[in-house]
Amino acid sequence: MVANDRLGLEGVFLEEELPLLIRRRGMADWHDGVVRILDRRALPHEERYVDCASVEEVARCIEDMVIQGAFSLSVAAGYGLALAAEPGVGNDDQGWAALQQGSDRLLKTRPTGLALHRMLKACLGAARTAIEQAESPRDSILATVDRAAAALARQGYQTGRTACELLADGATVLTHCFPDRSYAYMLVEARRVGKTINVIASETRPYLQGARLTSLCALQTGFDVKVITDGTGGSLMRRGQVDAFVTAADRVCMDGTVCNKVGTYQYALAAHANGLPYFVLRQSGPDVESADESAVEVEFRDGEEVVTIGGERTAPAGVGGLYPAFDCTPPELVTRIITDRGAFRAEEIAAYVDAEPFVRDAVV
Amino acid sequence: MVANDRLGLEGVFLEEELPLLIRRRGMADWHDGVVRILDRRALPHEERYVDCASVEEVARCIEDMVIQGAFSLSVAAGYGLALAAEPGVGNDDQGWAALQQGSDRLLKTRPTGLALHRMLKACLGAARTAIEQAESPRDSILATVDRAAAALARQGYQTGRTACELLADGATVLTHCFPDRSYAYMLVEARRVGKTINVIASETRPYLQGARLTSLCALQTGFDVKVITDGTGGSLMRRGQVDAFVTAADRVCMDGTVCNKVGTYQYALAAHANGLPYFVLRQSGPDVESADESAVEVEFRDGEEVVTIGGERTAPAGVGGLYPAFDCTPPELVTRIITDRGAFRAEEIAAYVDAEPFVRDAVV
Repeated sequence: MVANDRLGLEGVFLEEELPLLIRRRGMADWHDGVVRILDRRALPHEERYVDCASVEEVARCIEDMVIQGAFSLSVAAGYGLALAAEPGVGNDDQGWAALQQGSDRLLKTRPTGLALHRMLKACLGAARTAIEQAESPRDSILATVDRAAAALARQGYQTGRTACELLADGATVLTHCFPDRSYAYMLVEARRVGKTINVIASETRPYLQGARLTSLCALQTGFDVKVITDGTGGSLMRRGQVDAFVTAADRVCMDGTVCNKVGTYQYALAAHANGLPYFVLRQSGPDVESADESAVEVEFRDGEEVVTIGGERTAPAGVGGLYPAFDCTPPELVTRIITDRGAFRAEEIAAYVDAEPFVRDAVV
Repeated sequence: MVANDRLGLEGVFLEEELPLLIRRRGMADWHDGVVRILDRRALPHEERYVDCASVEEVARCIEDMVIQGAFSLSVAAGYGLALAAEPGVGNDDQGWAALQQGSDRLLKTRPTGLALHRMLKACLGAARTAIEQAESPRDSILATVDRAAAALARQGYQTGRTACELLADGATVLTHCFPDRSYAYMLVEARRVGKTINVIASETRPYLQGARLTSLCALQTGFDVKVITDGTGGSLMRRGQVDAFVTAADRVCMDGTVCNKVGTYQYALAAHANGLPYFVLRQSGPDVESADESAVEVEFRDGEEVVTIGGERTAPAGVGGLYPAFDCTPPELVTRIITDRGAFRAEEIAAYVDAEPFVRDAVV
């Protein structure tokens, strides 16, 4: 093994040992003045990248689902903000206004995304300091995002390790959507310690992240994986074919409410009704600014996304769709919320805030 | 209004007033020696028919989802069996063997389908009698199916009327899959009596019967309809955007267990958790031969159907799908089972058997 410091996992994994989606280039990366984003829409069939030269292009990549996952898209947005800063030293008001405009544009892409908010706030703060100290705001933003990306990898691995410990050898794990890096690290760690995990991936309409991304991660980790429709998970739980339900969370409230891809709540209900654990992977803990569900603004995306598959309409002309992209699961349906600071009972997740930090001065 | 006796709804509705899918030609019909089946796969965009000249062709139509819905496909299968009988009087052993073979082939298409079993049994019985009396087995099968189809329409309308009475004016009703004729009659009756129903149709992957068929029925009845992904219904119930959950049932057990398209169980759980009624439309009541869930053989269809959309693979090569086509919902999650003999509490559905018959000598 060699040091893998830009990845943040020095001496644990080599970049090439990881599934594509948790490599650096599987998120978004900075390449000589452009933001290079792996086009997740082309997966699993093609490994294709989009090079963005402007804030607007990065914002559209997020809106058009070129990249998804709360942390991955926050990394893309952070690098995207660097495109709003001129290279070199900048200290004029116009440069600062461009950064603020860039941040506003990127924030608009995903109103529910907390990591996105934090990343952009940190980058703006770093740029402000750079400007005040007559340093390069672009370099300062890039350093902030690099640091955040490395910390995210370390936190993700720590969270995945804890999750792996909670699963029995041979367990069948149902998941919904693509639960991002903690989940991938959970699989990678299981492989490392010789534990077998059977993966069931709920396809997750309309964008099929489960069928395309989760399954790819599991396949690249060497585990058996089966894809199901979003209506099937509850039935499999009832038939005794699932041992645990595991998802990520776009946001966790201080009372333990979990906000995640729509469909999560139904599965959480089914897990609870069938006595199965529901583990939430949320590496960076709860959002201290969200006391409970009332603080969560659920994003209603364009209903046309639901009545279209591959550009073709499924429903008759005149019939629209309804697409709340996220749902909220109350804490009584959640067994553990797993973070970089350990696994918490949902009702006690607020204790995360005072627990020993795993990453000091985390950005997101 | 004119008599509509072949439809079975004399003086109530004209054929042309009904949504396409509950017209006679919206199921399957006999036309001069061929079985003409509306190709539901081409809906909602095209009204196309498949003409079948052999048992095998009808069987493939059922297997390939040209037609679906327990009763509609049983009508298609009944007419299909007529293709195994030579026209005219038949009384030789070879003719009888061909009918038995035809019935076996058609039964194999849907092992879970009770109406299919009943229809084929009735048709074989009628053919046997015809042969013994030196009459035409084909004519006798056709008369049996015609009688069954007319009775199904009357039962469906009676069931739909009762369901309509249970819904408040302006109610928003979530459904899953295409709940066939009783549901369509529920909407048609609501329109007739001036009640507004807002329809939410769960798209129902992999074949999208909700997006394509349920939505078409609602649209043709003149009601507002929105399509959602199969993961969304629970979330809408929790948000207070649904007043009732309504489905058909492929089978109801004598203890009130409901067997229907996979995904139904999850929604039933969510309805129960959110204090909403779950109404099951099952016009012909419970299956007296199915005491409880242990009698139900859930059909696992080819997993490839889940990882393919429009012929294109969604998952990476090497990843398979898992597709139990049906699931079972226990009676405690069901509010009422609505039949042609009235609305029953799920636990009391066995009382259907001794209730006053609505149709005498029903075939299916």
